[in-house]
Amino acid sequence: MSHNTFGHLFRVTTWGESHGPAIGCVIDGCPPGVAFTRDEVQGYLDKRRPGQSRYTTQRKEPDTVAILSGTLENAETGEHVATGAPIALQIANVDQRSKDYAEVKDAFRPGHADFTYVAKYGLRDHRGGGRSSARETAMRVAAGAIARKVVPGLAVRAALIQMGTEKIDRANWDWDEVEQNPFFCPDHSAVQGWAAYLDGIRKAGSSCGAVIEVEATGIQAGLGAPIYGKLDSDLALAMMSINAVKGVEIGAGFAAAAMTGQENADEIRKGKDGKATFLSNNAGGILGGISTGQPVVARFVVKPTSSILTPVKTIDTRGNETEISTTGRHDPCVGIRAVPIGEAMMALVLADHYLRHRGQTGSA
Amino acid sequence: MSHNTFGHLFRVTTWGESHGPAIGCVIDGCPPGVAFTRDEVQGYLDKRRPGQSRYTTQRKEPDTVAILSGTLENAETGEHVATGAPIALQIANVDQRSKDYAEVKDAFRPGHADFTYVAKYGLRDHRGGGRSSARETAMRVAAGAIARKVVPGLAVRAALIQMGTEKIDRANWDWDEVEQNPFFCPDHSAVQGWAAYLDGIRKAGSSCGAVIEVEATGIQAGLGAPIYGKLDSDLALAMMSINAVKGVEIGAGFAAAAMTGQENADEIRKGKDGKATFLSNNAGGILGGISTGQPVVARFVVKPTSSILTPVKTIDTRGNETEISTTGRHDPCVGIRAVPIGEAMMALVLADHYLRHRGQTGSA
Amino acid sequence: MSHNTFGHLFRVTTWGESHGPAIGCVIDGCPPGVAFTRDEVQGYLDKRRPGQSRYTTQRKEPDTVAILSGTLENAETGEHVATGAPIALQIANVDQRSKDYAEVKDAFRPGHADFTYVAKYGLRDHRGGGRSSARETAMRVAAGAIARKVVPGLAVRAALIQMGTEKIDRANWDWDEVEQNPFFCPDHSAVQGWAAYLDGIRKAGSSCGAVIEVEATGIQAGLGAPIYGKLDSDLALAMMSINAVKGVEIGAGFAAAAMTGQENADEIRKGKDGKATFLSNNAGGILGGISTGQPVVARFVVKPTSSILTPVKTIDTRGNETEISTTGRHDPCVGIRAVPIGEAMMALVLADHYLRHRGQTGSA
Amino acid sequence: MSHNTFGHLFRVTTWGESHGPAIGCVIDGCPPGVAFTRDEVQGYLDKRRPGQSRYTTQRKEPDTVAILSGTLENAETGEHVATGAPIALQIANVDQRSKDYAEVKDAFRPGHADFTYVAKYGLRDHRGGGRSSARETAMRVAAGAIARKVVPGLAVRAALIQMGTEKIDRANWDWDEVEQNPFFCPDHSAVQGWAAYLDGIRKAGSSCGAVIEVEATGIQAGLGAPIYGKLDSDLALAMMSINAVKGVEIGAGFAAAAMTGQENADEIRKGKDGKATFLSNNAGGILGGISTGQPVVARFVVKPTSSILTPVKTIDTRGNETEISTTGRHDPCVGIRAVPIGEAMMALVLADHYLRHRGQTGSA
Repeated sequence: MSHNTFGHLFRVTTWGESHGPAIGCVIDGCPPGVAFTRDEVQGYLDKRRPGQSRYTTQRKEPDTVAILSGTLENAETGEHVATGAPIALQIANVDQRSKDYAEVKDAFRPGHADFTYVAKYGLRDHRGGGRSSARETAMRVAAGAIARKVVPGLAVRAALIQMGTEKIDRANWDWDEVEQNPFFCPDHSAVQGWAAYLDGIRKAGSSCGAVIEVEATGIQAGLGAPIYGKLDSDLALAMMSINAVKGVEIGAGFAAAAMTGQENADEIRKGKDGKATFLSNNAGGILGGISTGQPVVARFVVKPTSSILTPVKTIDTRGNETEISTTGRHDPCVGIRAVPIGEAMMALVLADHYLRHRGQTGSA
Repeated sequence: MSHNTFGHLFRVTTWGESHGPAIGCVIDGCPPGVAFTRDEVQGYLDKRRPGQSRYTTQRKEPDTVAILSGTLENAETGEHVATGAPIALQIANVDQRSKDYAEVKDAFRPGHADFTYVAKYGLRDHRGGGRSSARETAMRVAAGAIARKVVPGLAVRAALIQMGTEKIDRANWDWDEVEQNPFFCPDHSAVQGWAAYLDGIRKAGSSCGAVIEVEATGIQAGLGAPIYGKLDSDLALAMMSINAVKGVEIGAGFAAAAMTGQENADEIRKGKDGKATFLSNNAGGILGGISTGQPVVARFVVKPTSSILTPVKTIDTRGNETEISTTGRHDPCVGIRAVPIGEAMMALVLADHYLRHRGQTGSA
Repeated sequence: MSHNTFGHLFRVTTWGESHGPAIGCVIDGCPPGVAFTRDEVQGYLDKRRPGQSRYTTQRKEPDTVAILSGTLENAETGEHVATGAPIALQIANVDQRSKDYAEVKDAFRPGHADFTYVAKYGLRDHRGGGRSSARETAMRVAAGAIARKVVPGLAVRAALIQMGTEKIDRANWDWDEVEQNPFFCPDHSAVQGWAAYLDGIRKAGSSCGAVIEVEATGIQAGLGAPIYGKLDSDLALAMMSINAVKGVEIGAGFAAAAMTGQENADEIRKGKDGKATFLSNNAGGILGGISTGQPVVARFVVKPTSSILTPVKTIDTRGNETEISTTGRHDPCVGIRAVPIGEAMMALVLADHYLRHRGQTGSA
Repeated sequence: MSHNTFGHLFRVTTWGESHGPAIGCVIDGCPPGVAFTRDEVQGYLDKRRPGQSRYTTQRKEPDTVAILSGTLENAETGEHVATGAPIALQIANVDQRSKDYAEVKDAFRPGHADFTYVAKYGLRDHRGGGRSSARETAMRVAAGAIARKVVPGLAVRAALIQMGTEKIDRANWDWDEVEQNPFFCPDHSAVQGWAAYLDGIRKAGSSCGAVIEVEATGIQAGLGAPIYGKLDSDLALAMMSINAVKGVEIGAGFAAAAMTGQENADEIRKGKDGKATFLSNNAGGILGGISTGQPVVARFVVKPTSSILTPVKTIDTRGNETEISTTGRHDPCVGIRAVPIGEAMMALVLADHYLRHRGQTGSA
């Protein structure tokens, strides 16, 4: 029943609209002793921040995060140590141009939540999409930075593997490349083509979708739970909760439909360390809802940005037919900035399950 | 934190192993006055029941459901009226052949939860997969039958749209056909080919995956909630929680990646009734996590049955390498029987969100 | 939102009416490896069972509990070991005399939930009070028996310290005495007088209230949590959820109002083991919502049985004024049978907090 | 599992320490359209604010609340209308004298949470009690101000009925008097004596406890739920979660122990409006966990302030025996300022149950 809260034991509650004075979150349940710096959190926020290349919106949001509670700070090192109390993080909104949104006040933008918010609440905050703005995801990224510290050994990283009609060649996958280009693309040979493709989309006043792949490593076998507490179920909820996401898959995902049982079986051998080693990872590191110890692999699709220059048919709030085009500052491919958000949601799910597993079993 | 509970206001808690004396569920939060018959519930269970064609396991489970609490029964009509108290449903296990599972007691079956349950709990109930058995889904179907009655006007139906490498032609879609063939296939022209294909798979001691599409109609605009209570997020969790599911998509799903903003925009016109009409449904009936009033469309993929006759490499519980093949009674394509389960999960999500929406807004 | 579920990590969901075929519960979140026998659970149920003396209702409920899931049973020793899956417990209802309740079908019994159930649900199951029957508490006692095994070192016991106008002399407190008399009274010198007192109440067709004290020992310091997850808050909820309870206090309780800060301070000294020793326990073992390591002491009051032979004024379901007296089989002091129920609720709260503490901190 | 969240459908999450930069809360689930002004919220905060008489701490906390999200503000009227999105409230901490607490850094203050926080978390924020400070209750009062607007017709008020050894004469009860004296005392004839009594306590460097009575009127019959969702259970949790509270009772409370069934029965007659009228209210407006439509009456006890000038025995963080006295600014009777907090918790419980009732039944 927690519409604005994610997680059960590691809980994040976010608040704020893009055009109010600030946005923020409260992290409840953080284990005492977890240590982090403001700079670390800021680093992940900077990765998501808009205005860093011509491929993302030119809004200027410095997104400077403040830590308001729940830690003891070492004034010299800047290290914050969680006390076990709720950690409040906050970001002031700086670049609020409400006038940009005057034009959309009276019409429902197709693909946006305008129509459904009015249907649900009877009213809506039209400025910047109100609560439906992707600005909320900044707090996910900030909370995710702390979640990463909760699970010992955890590493989470993500990449854009498809942008519009352009796909990567998985044989070229290079994690180091991901940070070297403005698309978080892991295939160096694809980058130049992607740049040209997206320039075309942008100049045409259009937009395109994307697919993001997130990988978590360093996870012990045993995280997750049967039935309705499955690790993959919670990942599906987590990724689908990101703005504009329309699909989620784990491991082989939809490709599993056309596989045979033999092809899909991740056979097991005895590794050099005497532990189980899997010969493949079609399961995406999860069997029966519980981690196998292999990398956890999730993929999600982001639909094309709905705010486009091309006029589209719609109705206004009085029910009359009209057209709308969006002249504001928008990303031609919002999927790009979803990369660090996907990482954050993966970290949040794993931190929560790590504590849940420890609660029930005492191990970990 | 409810590993075995689904939902928030319409809550279903399931229990039981396939080889214990019974399985059951408790439905908490059912609105008083919701009326149903035992036969209605049984009807949905019969649809999921194994042993009805040569394409499903030959286990004989009559799956007769008993209603133990939470209703006032009209002895004459057989109608049960919910009192608002928890409704307990129960099915006795009849065909428990524990010996079938003796061979798997000491080895981890690839693709099954054997390895992960031991990793998590330090022990496992190997008989029939214990709690990881798909038998648990019978209770989902039973609870779903009641959930359907909670949302006025709701209709939920599903079909198999891909079986292994075989796909339907969507131009031939006929809902009436779905009940006419053992595959829940909506394309009459495909059925004969599917039968031959699956016979081939079965005779080869192999298995295949499948894709199921679920559609809900009659839903008002406004169900769902922003951020972490999105209707699509909860559907993603729900579908992914079904055994062997590896991916979920809503509306256009993964195809949205390659679409442009114009193609993906579901444009809006004024309908004859003065209400909004959408010209397409790429959104799958959900915008910003909230229903638009269009049909809600979800799709999920079921991996190939992991229990196959072909031997696959694995290790035993002492860590030694071995091989295993499964001679027990198993479905060559478990995706077929996932069709009524997908329907049930859709109904459970919508019933829950209907009550949640009513709680916060008072409408509905 | 779990009207019929208690707890967060150690969760108990109960179901069933006193006049249906059975009552039951599902325990979710039990740590794997927790071991217990059916006889142990039955032992606690027998303590609560009616019909054991002339001071409790003469209904004959053998209350034989069955364990339906979630354990591996050792056929030789009868020991059940929790697998981590939900544990379903069930008791068949044997002595259902629905005719006893025909007279109350059309009138609201003062002090009972008849009026409020109709106000809430628009209908009610009048047989035996339906869901409001104290019969539900049998499942609390059964679940509590397992909860006791979850916290290492935990011992929980309770006693009746006031029955109607009769109080004990705390100087005579003897835990061994509690099991020796039909009142769970810890003061041997009081028992004879209590017997005469209650006989008088019973013969007058009247009833009386009672106060129960529950004590838990063997609890480490650190269980509980600040703010809304306080150990005492959860105990207050737990005890107040028992039928007919109207008040709860911890440690010095209401007597603390008239104390000074010096009197109330539980001063701390260094014990022989080097650990903190408290010189008193006005705090009832809880400071800031977290256990101190001292005994946790809770007290609750049970109102007089509302079902009495003396006619009382009421209205019927059509709104007409009438009188009602209850001729059925009822306890003159329901507080007596609340003793094992109070113990069970204490155990449930502590088991839940033990797992919650372990989840967040990793210790315990 | 929400240590810092209260409520299920109307949810309040609080954060912040008394000596950090700010404290705040997030209200999730507020129905859209609920209207309030900042001044209204501030009014309740001012009632709780310290430094208003010589009987409360002389800390200067202006406690100016800011509304950061979740509303549409009418700039002219100052009215805020809830949009259905989370409402973030925040109060900057102004008067933080950390040096006041240097002396308590290394010793465990008896009656405080110092010892238990270290036992739980392994560390603590000693400044002002960190998270255990009663400063957190300011956010409860702020959230309660909005909760009052959620339930149509609801009125909540409270009074101090016992201060130390001094009690009121209930025959003199006058709600108008409550706002006229610094004790929230409803008995005019008692006020002068209370003033002298508390002056004596204060001058002696001592402290005393108190009992608060809270009453809610205008509540429909039917709020609450059976078993573990009882209105009285949630009130018990709510009141016991207030700092220093050691007991809670509903209606007749502990006095019910000595009553007979006839005395305790709240007999029912047909009122002039044709509806049920109760001839007494020993039930405190709640039967079977569900509201009867009568006033809901709860009472709770606050222990004497633990921070006293008189030295008390304790140990320091290294385990050595020492003594401690508190020279900081503290209330001689913290129970006084608990009056508006008790009102707030009552409002929060009722707002939550109002939405819960509406969710399940559709009425209200």
